[in-house]
Amino acid sequence: MSQTTPVPEVQYTDIRDRLRQFVAERDWAQFHTPKNLASALTVEAAELLEIFQWLPTGKADELDEQAKTAIRHEMADVLNYLVMLADALHVDLFAASMEKIVLNAIKYPVEQVKGDARKYTAYDNDPKIDAP
Amino acid sequence: MSQTTPVPEVQYTDIRDRLRQFVAERDWAQFHTPKNLASALTVEAAELLEIFQWLPTGKADELDEQAKTAIRHEMADVLNYLVMLADALHVDLFAASMEKIVLNAIKYPVEQVKGDARKYTAYDNDPKIDAP
Amino acid sequence: MSQTTPVPEVQYTDIRDRLRQFVAERDWAQFHTPKNLASALTVEAAELLEIFQWLPTGKADELDEQAKTAIRHEMADVLNYLVMLADALHVDLFAASMEKIVLNAIKYPVEQVKGDARKYTAYDNDPKIDAP
Amino acid sequence: MSQTTPVPEVQYTDIRDRLRQFVAERDWAQFHTPKNLASALTVEAAELLEIFQWLPTGKADELDEQAKTAIRHEMADVLNYLVMLADALHVDLFAASMEKIVLNAIKYPVEQVKGDARKYTAYDNDPKIDAP
Repeated sequence: MSQTTPVPEVQYTDIRDRLRQFVAERDWAQFHTPKNLASALTVEAAELLEIFQWLPTGKADELDEQAKTAIRHEMADVLNYLVMLADALHVDLFAASMEKIVLNAIKYPVEQVKGDARKYTAYDNDPKIDAP
Repeated sequence: MSQTTPVPEVQYTDIRDRLRQFVAERDWAQFHTPKNLASALTVEAAELLEIFQWLPTGKADELDEQAKTAIRHEMADVLNYLVMLADALHVDLFAASMEKIVLNAIKYPVEQVKGDARKYTAYDNDPKIDAP
Repeated sequence: MSQTTPVPEVQYTDIRDRLRQFVAERDWAQFHTPKNLASALTVEAAELLEIFQWLPTGKADELDEQAKTAIRHEMADVLNYLVMLADALHVDLFAASMEKIVLNAIKYPVEQVKGDARKYTAYDNDPKIDAP
Repeated sequence: MSQTTPVPEVQYTDIRDRLRQFVAERDWAQFHTPKNLASALTVEAAELLEIFQWLPTGKADELDEQAKTAIRHEMADVLNYLVMLADALHVDLFAASMEKIVLNAIKYPVEQVKGDARKYTAYDNDPKIDAP
């Protein structure tokens, strides 16, 4: 790329708009109920997980180029369904994200949870783990 | 808010940086292998799906305020794990998204799939449905 | 099949034993930590869900023969990982199932929930729906 | 228990029949389309996975009693939805299981895959891992 023609960075709204067009061209909005989008998002997340599932530790250095490409594609699928769902329900995804980080910061106080993912039972009456 | 002090819009990098800080403060990076992040992302996606699962059609008008708030929070959780995974693996999430839309546009040509989510068997040798 | 040699019905222990053999022959026990089995089970469940995800209602009459075969295979995958996980953790799956039905019968009293999957918010402080 | 009155072992049909009764009493069959059951099954599988997700290795010795009880309950939920789905679609779950093991034995020949979950890329053109 020459210095005089920088490639413009992709923005959130670019993705949203491109997805709207993709769906409209195919007349697929009829299938895209929020429920179906949430289902598709879950399926894509599981396809992402599948790539990691038998790795000994699941650290980055266990991933070869083929796995990395597949991961990149599945992450894109997850994001795309998330953006379509946000669009359908008028959710400001980035604001929601920041809001949730604040809520999690309150739910998991530093002094209580630092370095410990296993003491959840001590600070959560629910047997499910939802931290870190 | 006064007109003279607009709230700056949240940017992708703001979320990424805030998550980095959140994790560092709690010393949780040790738990955040890409494999574990992909697992957590899938769990959050399923929690999102759970909100919709018994709705008759799953359209937006079936959602009350409580459901909408829960959806917003679960979508934030999904995004947050996706951003952490992208950060861990140096994936440019938005570029990947655009790339995948281009690949999907080739995979699902308009003239072949328009208005039809059920003819997948006609254009896919795999019994699985991965469109729309 | 002749009338004099009926095919013996498959028993739970037959499946468990056949899976043990399958895994032993391939030396795959090393990959089958309970965590990895739970992950694989989730991935298979999502592959099952994928078959249904764009169907208008998801009732049985929308499924063609190809879909039915794919569903049968994915259900088998789910069961197989569930049996392997039960074997690894010494869980009596059928006893656990009966136990959980008793617990659910208490959690969802007939007079309170009859015919209603949407009133969960009235009898559950948690915004998540886990009934029916 | 006295020696003369052994507790009869729970059979598959006992679970199926008890679930039929549970659903009928609550008039919940209307919500139990195969699609919704597949969705609920996926959600329960993810709740099972959640219990394991931050464990260092996910081996059995990392599980305390509380985790084991939660696992047992989530496994029961998965089985219960699987049995209801099999009932709705007239699938012989155990026969399907045996059938799939035979198919997998062909797909993953011992001499090719023994002790190796990572060489999938060498015997699978698809970047996804579906073995072991």
